[in-house]
Amino acid sequence: MWKPDRGSKKALYQQIADHLEQRISYGEFPPGSLLPSERKLADRLGVNRSTVIMAFAELRSMGIIDSRTGSGTRVSATKWGATPRHTPNWSRYAEGGNFLPNLPFMRRIREALIQQPSLIDFASGELAADLAPSEEIAKLMSGFQYTSYLGYDNPQGSIPLRQALVDYLEKYREIRTTESSILITSGSQQSLYLITQCLLSPGDAVAIEDPSYCYSLPMFQSAGIRLFRLPVDSQGIQPEEIRSLFKKHRIKMVFLNPNFQNPTGTVLSDASRRQLLDIASELRLPIVEDDPFSLTAYDGNPPSPLKASDKVGSIIYIGSFSKIAASGLRIGWMVAPHSIVKRLADARQQMDFGLSVIPQQVAGQFLQSSLFEPHLDRLRMELRFRRDLTIEALNKELPDALAYTIPDGGLHLWCRLNSAIQDGRLLEETIKRGTVFVPGSVYGSDPGFVRFTFSRPKTEDIERGISLFCEAFRQLNN
Amino acid sequence: MWKPDRGSKKALYQQIADHLEQRISYGEFPPGSLLPSERKLADRLGVNRSTVIMAFAELRSMGIIDSRTGSGTRVSATKWGATPRHTPNWSRYAEGGNFLPNLPFMRRIREALIQQPSLIDFASGELAADLAPSEEIAKLMSGFQYTSYLGYDNPQGSIPLRQALVDYLEKYREIRTTESSILITSGSQQSLYLITQCLLSPGDAVAIEDPSYCYSLPMFQSAGIRLFRLPVDSQGIQPEEIRSLFKKHRIKMVFLNPNFQNPTGTVLSDASRRQLLDIASELRLPIVEDDPFSLTAYDGNPPSPLKASDKVGSIIYIGSFSKIAASGLRIGWMVAPHSIVKRLADARQQMDFGLSVIPQQVAGQFLQSSLFEPHLDRLRMELRFRRDLTIEALNKELPDALAYTIPDGGLHLWCRLNSAIQDGRLLEETIKRGTVFVPGSVYGSDPGFVRFTFSRPKTEDIERGISLFCEAFRQLNN
Ligand SMILES: Cc1ncc(COP(=O)(O)O)c(C=O)c1O
Ligand SMILES: Cc1ncc(COP(=O)(O)O)c(C=O)c1O
Repeated sequence: MWKPDRGSKKALYQQIADHLEQRISYGEFPPGSLLPSERKLADRLGVNRSTVIMAFAELRSMGIIDSRTGSGTRVSATKWGATPRHTPNWSRYAEGGNFLPNLPFMRRIREALIQQPSLIDFASGELAADLAPSEEIAKLMSGFQYTSYLGYDNPQGSIPLRQALVDYLEKYREIRTTESSILITSGSQQSLYLITQCLLSPGDAVAIEDPSYCYSLPMFQSAGIRLFRLPVDSQGIQPEEIRSLFKKHRIKMVFLNPNFQNPTGTVLSDASRRQLLDIASELRLPIVEDDPFSLTAYDGNPPSPLKASDKVGSIIYIGSFSKIAASGLRIGWMVAPHSIVKRLADARQQMDFGLSVIPQQVAGQFLQSSLFEPHLDRLRMELRFRRDLTIEALNKELPDALAYTIPDGGLHLWCRLNSAIQDGRLLEETIKRGTVFVPGSVYGSDPGFVRFTFSRPKTEDIERGISLFCEAFRQLNN
Repeated sequence: MWKPDRGSKKALYQQIADHLEQRISYGEFPPGSLLPSERKLADRLGVNRSTVIMAFAELRSMGIIDSRTGSGTRVSATKWGATPRHTPNWSRYAEGGNFLPNLPFMRRIREALIQQPSLIDFASGELAADLAPSEEIAKLMSGFQYTSYLGYDNPQGSIPLRQALVDYLEKYREIRTTESSILITSGSQQSLYLITQCLLSPGDAVAIEDPSYCYSLPMFQSAGIRLFRLPVDSQGIQPEEIRSLFKKHRIKMVFLNPNFQNPTGTVLSDASRRQLLDIASELRLPIVEDDPFSLTAYDGNPPSPLKASDKVGSIIYIGSFSKIAASGLRIGWMVAPHSIVKRLADARQQMDFGLSVIPQQVAGQFLQSSLFEPHLDRLRMELRFRRDLTIEALNKELPDALAYTIPDGGLHLWCRLNSAIQDGRLLEETIKRGTVFVPGSVYGSDPGFVRFTFSRPKTEDIERGISLFCEAFRQLNN
């Protein structure tokens, strides 16, 4: 992103005015459209608000923008020979369709991370750069030959990757399947999107855990789906509650993350698993099992997936490379009955014509290489180490102010604050101090919970990040 | 895909029975679900139908499947300890959502190409393997370092690729923009999907060319959008017709492919361009300009995009790597006003969390490398050569039976058959003989048109492919 050049002889405000003039003349801000506020722009460009005020004054004097108190700064009508009466009403178009925008807290966090890349990031649910298998991938890629085919891919995803996944699923997840039951997706996110778009209809009811990653996704609401809650305690959900939701609301599907659940880190108990499968079979109810975290089990013994005991065929199984290798690969997979895989593959063609062949090749070769297992070993060890660092830091600073269960896998620590602090205020105070987390309400919980993703910050930043968070907490708690 | 092993001692029918038993036991075909028909299976596995009939008989004798005359073969209820009364009604779920399946002809073609990889392919709208910059990409990739970051990408797409595109758009397309106006997408397909899903609402009317690539996409109908036609002649559309569609139907948007239009190959005339931009400005009507083919201009002088003359900001510009480099990269881009880019980037996060970082890096480096320009030069030369081969072959075999305009760019030759042959019969006859094309009706035209994608077959196959097509044509024409 463009930033003013502090070494230049040209004044900062003048650089900003020139830059904005250019962007306006290129059509990025058509006549009549609203510019970002002075405050936002100052934040984004890393300058004082007064500098932006001077840049705006300059543009106003040239007749390029108009400001009206209370209604912001707009690109003026006449300067470019075109008036707003000629330009499509773009902001009206931007409100079209059924897509709800992302949750305000998520947008705020994303924006803060773009504006202040130095923030210590306990918010992004992913691995730190040094936990990703970067060198392994570079090594694999340097040997590639692309003399074969770089055309549109098979709608279900590349066959070699699906074959590698058949072996992977049997070896690591006790799931026996064939490549024709596998759909490769752009991560679990696309699997969830395809399921909600293509297998459910507006008005359908589904059950999800409470709290749940699914609450952070306006996707369900955008599709007009009604969400019902299955409270999660230290043993996971109570399967019996599915039966009552089914009676009351005719739920059509259940979305679960049984192993190292996001955000709570819990593992569904064995007894509940058996009960769950029985109920699903009795009610003929499909279960979507989202299983991105299992292989992070710190002791090297990942809990089994539900799918491994699915005798009846109730389960759509979803996996991903994001949390065990690299989210930037955008490689996920789904195991489902033939009719479902065909349907979703056909729909996905219409959305994006399938995935890039290159990351699929990388992922397939990585899975089958001797590099994968050592990577997993290192990852588990590192995650446990970061979990412990995070907990130590919290215990040192706030021994009595919060409660948590120590997770045995996954990337997250879920904490309850023993004091009612407004989520938004706590978030702003921590961002101000240089760190960021996700408020629990994003996952549908009551206020007073926070999720720390300890896999994301650099090891050497964890202690300081937690200390900054605690400072913010104490400040608001006084 | 699994195929029986003809070298094995085990009988073919027994191999097939074992394979199906395994897939059924893995849950790919749950109890009560329908198996593919004998004919389909025989096609797919490359065996006689009688072999499949014997395999089915074997499975029936084991109680694994049931056949009932007229209603196909189903997985039986009892064998697996589960009855259909326990398994979700998956086929009902597969009918959920608003997604229409792809057009029958398109599914037929895709299936034929999967079953018979040896078909001479004039149907897939892409480049042959030897036209893609495979060696260039392998060379770039072998130098990559992934010590940086493999996490979730910026929602608008990678910044280095957007910066490379700013230069590319100015140099090759006369479009001046900044990286904040660019959204990277999974090809033009995803750009079109995002626009229809997020900027239009069910019931909205839009205008598209007739014939048009857009007709091949059930995407518009799935979104509940009403399509109105702008007939294309040798000069492209008549912009005045937009005015009357606007009056009659309040169209909300126009989708155009002004340069080397798919399928007709026409270039919109200069006079029509000026008129079009005036009308768009007068009616405040957004135009989506889909521009994947321009750089294929065989004479090296690509026609300008509309966007280069868009003073008012009426145009959303869509580009792609698919037709000038490799469709399997899945890299496209969109240039649009700030508010639109932000909106679509936010919605895209919910669909797939953005693109893989690796192909974005490949694409960015390729654009900026000294390899890009020579690749384009070679591509243009090769495309012209294949166009000429195709036309020669047609002229030799069917001099009077068809009419076409010679295209100056793009991948396609659009032909009118001087005789009314049913699209479906012609397609089946050509597939039977070993080649495949796309019937014009897929693009919304009347029967009797065909699209030949001359960029897709190997050079050495073009003459024989056309000759097989002509044989089928003559057969039906008698
Ligand atoms: C439970 C769960 N499911 C799915 C996802 C989506 O991940 P991806 O699309 O990268 O696989 C996440 C990411 O945070 C997650 O935590
Ligand atoms: C006119 C046109 N637009 C868009 C596309 C989609 O291409 P992609 O998504 O690969 O960029 C095609 C592909 O055939 C096309 O012909």
